[in-house]
Amino acid sequence: MNTEAATSEPGLPLTADADPAALDAADPLAGLRRRFVFPDPDLLYLDGNSLGRPPLAALERLARVARQEWASELIRGWEHWLGEPLRVGDVLGTEIIGARPGEVAICDSTTVDFYRLASAALSARPDRRIIVTDRANFPTDRYVLEGLARDRDREIAWLDPDPIDGPSLDDVAAALDAHPDDVALVTLTHVNYRSAAIADLAGITERAHAGGALVLWDLSHSAGSVPVGLEEHGVDLAVGCTYKYLCGGPGAPAYLYIRSELQDTLRNPIQGWFGQADQFEMGQGFKPRPGIAGWLTGTPGILGLAAAEEGIRVVAEAGIDRIRAKGIALTEYAIALHDARLAPLGFMLGSPRESARRGAHVSIRRPDARDLTRRMIAAGVIPDFRAPDSIRLGLSPLTTSFADVRRAMERIADLARGH
Amino acid sequence: MNTEAATSEPGLPLTADADPAALDAADPLAGLRRRFVFPDPDLLYLDGNSLGRPPLAALERLARVARQEWASELIRGWEHWLGEPLRVGDVLGTEIIGARPGEVAICDSTTVDFYRLASAALSARPDRRIIVTDRANFPTDRYVLEGLARDRDREIAWLDPDPIDGPSLDDVAAALDAHPDDVALVTLTHVNYRSAAIADLAGITERAHAGGALVLWDLSHSAGSVPVGLEEHGVDLAVGCTYKYLCGGPGAPAYLYIRSELQDTLRNPIQGWFGQADQFEMGQGFKPRPGIAGWLTGTPGILGLAAAEEGIRVVAEAGIDRIRAKGIALTEYAIALHDARLAPLGFMLGSPRESARRGAHVSIRRPDARDLTRRMIAAGVIPDFRAPDSIRLGLSPLTTSFADVRRAMERIADLARGH
Repeated sequence: MNTEAATSEPGLPLTADADPAALDAADPLAGLRRRFVFPDPDLLYLDGNSLGRPPLAALERLARVARQEWASELIRGWEHWLGEPLRVGDVLGTEIIGARPGEVAICDSTTVDFYRLASAALSARPDRRIIVTDRANFPTDRYVLEGLARDRDREIAWLDPDPIDGPSLDDVAAALDAHPDDVALVTLTHVNYRSAAIADLAGITERAHAGGALVLWDLSHSAGSVPVGLEEHGVDLAVGCTYKYLCGGPGAPAYLYIRSELQDTLRNPIQGWFGQADQFEMGQGFKPRPGIAGWLTGTPGILGLAAAEEGIRVVAEAGIDRIRAKGIALTEYAIALHDARLAPLGFMLGSPRESARRGAHVSIRRPDARDLTRRMIAAGVIPDFRAPDSIRLGLSPLTTSFADVRRAMERIADLARGH
Repeated sequence: MNTEAATSEPGLPLTADADPAALDAADPLAGLRRRFVFPDPDLLYLDGNSLGRPPLAALERLARVARQEWASELIRGWEHWLGEPLRVGDVLGTEIIGARPGEVAICDSTTVDFYRLASAALSARPDRRIIVTDRANFPTDRYVLEGLARDRDREIAWLDPDPIDGPSLDDVAAALDAHPDDVALVTLTHVNYRSAAIADLAGITERAHAGGALVLWDLSHSAGSVPVGLEEHGVDLAVGCTYKYLCGGPGAPAYLYIRSELQDTLRNPIQGWFGQADQFEMGQGFKPRPGIAGWLTGTPGILGLAAAEEGIRVVAEAGIDRIRAKGIALTEYAIALHDARLAPLGFMLGSPRESARRGAHVSIRRPDARDLTRRMIAAGVIPDFRAPDSIRLGLSPLTTSFADVRRAMERIADLARGH
């Protein structure tokens, strides 16, 4: 048992024999499940870390935006839509990921935002040739960096960390030492998409700064599942999506964070009209709006943004510390059930055992994972398959109960036995 | 009277004295107005070229995507969402803007798509330093080009055309001649956002090719209002938005077009996971999907895309030739009313008089345009103000009646008289 979990839920033993009804009865976030849509109460959805369930408020908001705002206000809707990317960005920034006001904008996709920030970081370190990242990083980040390395004549120093634990402070330090005064950018994912390992954001950021590099974190699997502390840890740059733990909807817009002190020195490679001072004067010459506003690009998708706002607001209301405590408890419980029921059937754990090092999902591994995932879905238990042999169980704290975890793990055991 | 308009609507005199009820009765597209939402029948909305009215089908589709797909299918929705950007792109491409199948993808914003294609064009012409565009081009295109010129060490040769007629073939030819073998990219807007002037897309494309340059057209004000003929005219690259005449909703996703022959030689600067072959294998090394699919970037916003599909489908159903004929008739009628009722009050026409040279909006100019626009909106007539002195009247053919035009022009006359 982990002390952090024990502290947050005193007296509840998270063993395989624990009574899930008692765990749910003691869960301070249980009541928030009623704020989400559950059309099929029998479905065991363990993929809220890939696409979160819709908040009821998001569905109501979408109907209102379509029927009242788009249809009735028409172009006049822009009087309030214009402010949405920064207004919602501030809620996410200040209440969920530990930024200061004016440091987060919601816009574009994670891929495009990651490209813009990585590109800006390279421009800010013109005499340094190296980008440090890891082979286990999320694919879109790796692919974007490969394109940038090619187009900007830079080189990627690939870390090849332990597949469960992810890149360590030592891995990053070694890469910095191997390329003294030559690393422009260190960019990693905070919570690994596969194993859920939490990287040492504070230590790696500090070490990269000591080596003169900028740091860019991908928060896609951490925002809304674990505290991030961007300001506290002096993070330069971050991006992430809103469709996972933030429950923003399929393909909901992403966000970018730029530390206040860097906003006016970094250069946005994609200068769009939403980042222009006096936008509607439509004058000659790009003059960026001050601060994070200068990093907006094209016209923001209002339908997606409105739905995302409702997801972000319910996460903010729940509070990231309560969400974290429940995420630890859910994953501890899932691991206890894995050890008791699945390990004897040939499963191996693909996530860190120490809860302080693990986000809100758990990977379990077995050679037939691809086929087993198909059979799980047919049996009403929905995880993600990750090649070659991982089944990823997302335990989104706002919408997953302890009873869900128990039923899902039992059903997986039945299926693995061939039933 | 213009012969093209007369041909398309034989026997209907489009003079200031024409009976709008008779014009509406003879309009083959009048019935399609019932497919759109009109919450306030008294509102005279002349801004469908900035944000189109919602099709009823878009509101129904949004409710379905939210309640049935997002809430019930959850992550399984991606089985069909994955194909949407290209499936809808093909409808737009083949039925509305004259592309071949597999040449259009709906994704990102116009700004981001414009950046990607302009950047790719520069990479394809590494030994040429000049980008040709015009001072009257839409702001976001100009700002993006300024950023690219700075970051890629290129220079913009600015055309400074007549503000009503826009850049001519001669203007472009002169710029090409002034920089022999040095122009990498010619990029212009097909229908000018302010005056509605239609550029000579065929002639300019041919002339740019003769000079060895690539051509990138912004179709934001032409897709869904005038035929474009991308394949017919050998256009290399194009982008545009879907929230104007295509009625896709506020901030609906944009589209990009790449001529088939160029798709595999041009290089996408933003290599995202949606453009990766075997995307969900999440393997090492970016290997683009063949064709236009390799130009997808991050996770597409499904809510916005679904609404946009419904707008695109109703435009395709109406048919671009019928839309064009009605756009000519509406603007001819508005100009006749301008000449009879507004010119005596000090207005000047800010759009070409020759209908073959004009899209589906009309600009009228008066020194007090900014204040007059405010009073028009208060009086229930909604145009766009464009600094310093233009009032832009968008006559979106699917949702604007001849009666609307008559009532709006009379109300403008009343307001201009100080009533």
